[in-house]
Amino acid sequence: MTVEKQPDARLDAETLAAMNVWWRAANFLSVGQIYLLDNPLLRRPLEIGDVKPRLLGHWGTTPGLNFIYLHLNRVIRARDVDVLYVAGPGHGAPGVVASTYLDGTYSELYPEISRDEEGVRKLFRQFSFPGGIPSHAAPETPGSIHEGGELGYSLAHAFGAVLDNPDLIAACVVGDGEAETGPLAASWHSNKFLNPATDGAVLPILHLNGYKIANPTILARIDPEELRALFRGYGYEPIFVEGDQPDPMHEAMAAALDGAFDMIRAIQNEARGGGAPAGRPRWPMIVFRSPKGWTGPAFVDGLKAEGFWRSHQVPFSDMSKPEHLTLLEDWLRSYRPEELFDEAGAFLPEIAALAPRGEKRMSANPHANGGALKRPLRMPDFTEHAVAVERPGAVKAEATRVMGAFLRDVMKANEASRNFRVFGPDETASNRLSALFEVTDRAWMERTIPEDDHLAPTGRVMEALSEHLCQGWLEGYLLTGRHGLFSCYEAFIHIVDSMFNQHAKWLKTLKETPWRRPIASLNYLLTSHVWQQDHNGFSHQDPGFIDHVVNKKADIVRVYLPPDANTLLYVADHCLRSWDRINVIVAGKAPALQWLDMDAAIKHCTRGIGVWEWASTDKGSEPDVVMACAGDAPTLETLAAVDLLRGYFPDLKVRVVNVVDLMTLQPKSEHPHGLTDADFDALFTTDKPVIFAYHGYPWLIHRLAYRRANHANLHVRGYREEGSTTTTFDMVVRNGVDRFHLVADVIDRTPALGASAVSVKQAISDKLIEHERYIRAHGLDLPEVRDWRWSSAEGDPGRAS
Amino acid sequence: MTVEKQPDARLDAETLAAMNVWWRAANFLSVGQIYLLDNPLLRRPLEIGDVKPRLLGHWGTTPGLNFIYLHLNRVIRARDVDVLYVAGPGHGAPGVVASTYLDGTYSELYPEISRDEEGVRKLFRQFSFPGGIPSHAAPETPGSIHEGGELGYSLAHAFGAVLDNPDLIAACVVGDGEAETGPLAASWHSNKFLNPATDGAVLPILHLNGYKIANPTILARIDPEELRALFRGYGYEPIFVEGDQPDPMHEAMAAALDGAFDMIRAIQNEARGGGAPAGRPRWPMIVFRSPKGWTGPAFVDGLKAEGFWRSHQVPFSDMSKPEHLTLLEDWLRSYRPEELFDEAGAFLPEIAALAPRGEKRMSANPHANGGALKRPLRMPDFTEHAVAVERPGAVKAEATRVMGAFLRDVMKANEASRNFRVFGPDETASNRLSALFEVTDRAWMERTIPEDDHLAPTGRVMEALSEHLCQGWLEGYLLTGRHGLFSCYEAFIHIVDSMFNQHAKWLKTLKETPWRRPIASLNYLLTSHVWQQDHNGFSHQDPGFIDHVVNKKADIVRVYLPPDANTLLYVADHCLRSWDRINVIVAGKAPALQWLDMDAAIKHCTRGIGVWEWASTDKGSEPDVVMACAGDAPTLETLAAVDLLRGYFPDLKVRVVNVVDLMTLQPKSEHPHGLTDADFDALFTTDKPVIFAYHGYPWLIHRLAYRRANHANLHVRGYREEGSTTTTFDMVVRNGVDRFHLVADVIDRTPALGASAVSVKQAISDKLIEHERYIRAHGLDLPEVRDWRWSSAEGDPGRAS
Repeated sequence: MTVEKQPDARLDAETLAAMNVWWRAANFLSVGQIYLLDNPLLRRPLEIGDVKPRLLGHWGTTPGLNFIYLHLNRVIRARDVDVLYVAGPGHGAPGVVASTYLDGTYSELYPEISRDEEGVRKLFRQFSFPGGIPSHAAPETPGSIHEGGELGYSLAHAFGAVLDNPDLIAACVVGDGEAETGPLAASWHSNKFLNPATDGAVLPILHLNGYKIANPTILARIDPEELRALFRGYGYEPIFVEGDQPDPMHEAMAAALDGAFDMIRAIQNEARGGGAPAGRPRWPMIVFRSPKGWTGPAFVDGLKAEGFWRSHQVPFSDMSKPEHLTLLEDWLRSYRPEELFDEAGAFLPEIAALAPRGEKRMSANPHANGGALKRPLRMPDFTEHAVAVERPGAVKAEATRVMGAFLRDVMKANEASRNFRVFGPDETASNRLSALFEVTDRAWMERTIPEDDHLAPTGRVMEALSEHLCQGWLEGYLLTGRHGLFSCYEAFIHIVDSMFNQHAKWLKTLKETPWRRPIASLNYLLTSHVWQQDHNGFSHQDPGFIDHVVNKKADIVRVYLPPDANTLLYVADHCLRSWDRINVIVAGKAPALQWLDMDAAIKHCTRGIGVWEWASTDKGSEPDVVMACAGDAPTLETLAAVDLLRGYFPDLKVRVVNVVDLMTLQPKSEHPHGLTDADFDALFTTDKPVIFAYHGYPWLIHRLAYRRANHANLHVRGYREEGSTTTTFDMVVRNGVDRFHLVADVIDRTPALGASAVSVKQAISDKLIEHERYIRAHGLDLPEVRDWRWSSAEGDPGRAS
Repeated sequence: MTVEKQPDARLDAETLAAMNVWWRAANFLSVGQIYLLDNPLLRRPLEIGDVKPRLLGHWGTTPGLNFIYLHLNRVIRARDVDVLYVAGPGHGAPGVVASTYLDGTYSELYPEISRDEEGVRKLFRQFSFPGGIPSHAAPETPGSIHEGGELGYSLAHAFGAVLDNPDLIAACVVGDGEAETGPLAASWHSNKFLNPATDGAVLPILHLNGYKIANPTILARIDPEELRALFRGYGYEPIFVEGDQPDPMHEAMAAALDGAFDMIRAIQNEARGGGAPAGRPRWPMIVFRSPKGWTGPAFVDGLKAEGFWRSHQVPFSDMSKPEHLTLLEDWLRSYRPEELFDEAGAFLPEIAALAPRGEKRMSANPHANGGALKRPLRMPDFTEHAVAVERPGAVKAEATRVMGAFLRDVMKANEASRNFRVFGPDETASNRLSALFEVTDRAWMERTIPEDDHLAPTGRVMEALSEHLCQGWLEGYLLTGRHGLFSCYEAFIHIVDSMFNQHAKWLKTLKETPWRRPIASLNYLLTSHVWQQDHNGFSHQDPGFIDHVVNKKADIVRVYLPPDANTLLYVADHCLRSWDRINVIVAGKAPALQWLDMDAAIKHCTRGIGVWEWASTDKGSEPDVVMACAGDAPTLETLAAVDLLRGYFPDLKVRVVNVVDLMTLQPKSEHPHGLTDADFDALFTTDKPVIFAYHGYPWLIHRLAYRRANHANLHVRGYREEGSTTTTFDMVVRNGVDRFHLVADVIDRTPALGASAVSVKQAISDKLIEHERYIRAHGLDLPEVRDWRWSSAEGDPGRAS
């Protein structure tokens, strides 16, 4: 690999001086945001009334963020490169906002924050102020794809952003506090999945300023040789920039960035030269060690502040002490604001010119407002994958395998635009999506051996055994305008509960931020679900992600429980076409009876909920009982129960309601998909017993439907945390969602069934005992359960009773 | 540091031969568990009926786990050391169970699994079979403190186990799949918190067998020099044991373990010699690279199996092919079972003698059944920390600061027994628990500088910026019989949702496992909660952990929302005395009005829910409206609303009900703390409007109370995901939980209030507009809100109206 030096990238004295001025301005604007309500350019002596009543924001990381931003600006101009700025450190907004104000974007997007004294006043005032902006990079922050609130995801976001963006470089500032989190510690290994030929580059900049809230950080205190070994072990070439004197630090940072960008260019040139792939390159990264609260007050109340944890947040905040007001004024004036802004309060144009132009500004990079670049997926016709269902319940199929073939076609149809990827923790094949490997591979940059299965640098399936990485990469990919799907074991998606929260919050704020454009939805396929974890046991059984999801804003979240393959196809197609949402699809992978042909599936899914007339015996009249179901396993059991009921009580009028779109159960006022009360009552009646077999924790259905007229008659069965290593059917038995318990529920709630009900209940009870004995003896379910098939109401020979 | 060689630790030919026999036996028993239903010792030719109908379990990692177990046995005997075996690789139970059967513990704990042919048959049969055991190490597994289902936590558990156990060594096998997870990647840094003088040691053994389910692993494929650098960077001295020939591997492993145990001994001797602390030592770790499915079939159906991902799970499972039956029989017979077991089926005593004796067996190590070692905490009198509350709402206190002083006393009272620690992600001070630092420090082994704040190797407060590490360490600490508390920002506790799930499941199974003894509860203090994140904004606001928690078994989970400092003291004391539970305490840290003196607090918390008569105006008669509240912020707003109502409608009879123990709301049939319907109705009436101000997402209250008689009249307000950077009071306003909205709710539901209600509603609406204007102008809440104080019903002068 030849690293070409860029001749135009040395710092001359004039540039150095100008950069120092910019840095002073950025730091001044940062301190101003934290402290000032008024008197923004200090055109008069500072008074207590100029200071905010509450002082918020984190000063500690801010001067470093400003310093790095400024230096990236220089590199962008010198090399005409496309750079995204990912600010990982928590609460670093004062710096990011100051820098994006200096380069003009802020005023373009928020015209009221103008480039004059009044604009600066508003800029200061809005920071961490009611009706204003948060103290960390957020959707409101120009150029950001990353929220600096919950820590740990910056590097995964950066890697996601540069996938399939060969000309993009994500400069990712990683805070040394953030670096202690698990997700961040794993994210360094993302380089094993980055193809220098077709993806862009990530330049991690580890910002060692030594302290978290009240503690030193691990990486700042370990032996420097260990630090170097760690990053070489992670596969990077670390470049160290360390010091506390601005001028030498400017020189060192400029040289480090030039070196890093040279290396990136060289790696990419080599990979793109058409020669044989050379394996995973050793990408550069920068260790930037600078004092916490750099340029801030050295001492506060006689205690060390600059370079110390006391500078982590606001270095001093009790403004009732007159000496603190003086300290603040001296601090602000140390940046010489009078030299930074003209008479009107506009930033000096000759210094402002250090910023790149137009969309080259990191704050205006279109990748950071990915919706602006998003192109809809080219969608193949999902109906071509329809499973032929001549009559309900006669044929078996593996729903996710059918979906896998559809995903393969989606992958193929969008091959040229390279804007679709599938993510999963080593489970794509296990989740039966292997058809994808007919058209692509798993992304993999390490060496391979002949026996390896579909590994290639060009692979578009991203598999690492880390749900955090899958989620973080996908978020970065979506936020930069692309599309994707995350397939995961249902129980273990809880690993990213908190990342889901943050993305849902991001989407809510995105929709409230006028200049942000819609991005593709984040789609989860949760399979290997709770009812199919009989073999893996209790630790693999948890359907609670749905409960977690529905706490978020109705505008954002959707939950689908397609009962079979054709309904899954419809739902998958729908979700991949949607935007600004988080779609959760729960579907099974095991061979299962199919219920709806494609026409019926489309009709059913379009409504999201409906009566299955072919399975009902109420023939359009008022039923005696409603059997509702949501999810593939509960649907099977409900139909098997109905089948038993037809045999036991031929006159009983049963209505079967199937729910695909869980949100239909909520009142219309709570969720846009919610049924009106009239529609709900038409399905569920207002006074008949409703036996509802649900995929997850049963109380969720009550939480969604408690305002409905017939709620008092709603009896829900679902997973009640009774799991084990057992058989598929025993899983539903243990949780009372099986056909026998459902029949018993109907009997218990239908007094009119009369005397024969008693013997039926006894027969059911005997059957459950027989089941228990059989599985213990054979390790398999009763043949009549395994072989059960739905038959038409007229009584096909295949019908069990 | 002088590393002493142990002269007795070389492998002689006889030992080597015996060890090979043991290993054959362990592998045979592992394959048998996966495949055999009958004919356990192959005393007759294998028939298809001898094979299980469903083949489950993971063979890939198993021979390695057996190999390591066997070698640890040798070391334990040679050195008389106390070793805990933590098996990280997923689904490794066949190996762990086989090894613990060979050393006798299994039959001691499960007498029906006897040491004869019938015992072996039952051992095989129970594995991944209905009514049997799961395929990964689990609570049922002797010697285990770690569930091998969800991956990523083994190393954190191991470190937690050895804290304050100076004579214990946790040998932690880390799977190379598991090593890709975020929590595991961060866990290597746990060595920065381990004090060689007073803690035990962890010996990580990275088991590189190359593959996950369908993919190579990252660490198995990177350049060996990178691998070495990575672990040196993490601060370890890696020892490599690599190969596929058993005899040289035995020699290499014996030498590696001797070397590692020598180093551990030397480090500990030096640290315990009384000299000056020498800083963090470089602990050894072992990289054990062995073939996946070692000793299994080399090829299956012509495809490479041994050493390849096809050996990850069951290497072949379609037993309808006759050649597979032959392959299985050949494979089983390759271990020569006839040489391993005597006529009766008992394992050869001379080989069984390779195991240590009694409690030195890893499977019988009492630390792994921590409840057997647990001593109750010495509890100081919490009432000594009582905040003096002369009358409700007159004095302010910071609840968690008061609790911090109590925790300090707990820490001090248990100093000698060294069995209590506090964990948190760099938030102990932020969460106002700093009184702890009067008696202890933060654990920290890196270098310190004079300005550092309470860092010491002997510190008993564990702070790393990783919720995963805090949770994992604490779990390991509790499972080995000690006590602790995890304090965390409420929103970010979701980071460990999935770890919570697994621990809750562990506790449920522990209680069903007769030989497992009760362990101390896992106690969460969630503070910096949703209503106190006005300054940090939307990303820091999420009260949903409670929703997550209540999905788990009622036996296990408790949720407490003490409204002030004295109630928090009672709850904290109660939780620290409990066992086999997960207690979630949500409490504020900000200065807040105090309601109950200590006597009243004890009375109120003992019931968990009750009428606050001093705040009610129903004077024991039937009220017109019930104002219920749970959580400190909603309690404040409810009382302020009652205060307003007294002014507006002096004749209105209001009953105030406060809920500390959230589980009281559930029916008695659902939760042991649930109120009977009679008690519930006595509090909430059966027909009066109930306005419930709740800390979290409002629908949770409906989910708990939907079966209660008066549910239709229950109107709940809570956090509805409307957050921002704003003021404290504006947070409640945005979510409609503020005093003004609560008053409006009362008016809307009390038609009898008559005509004056209209003007009151107008006044309230005006007040909300004034609030909005005021906070935007001043960044602070209205003075009448900030200065509001509760007054007695007689109308103190301080009362706002």
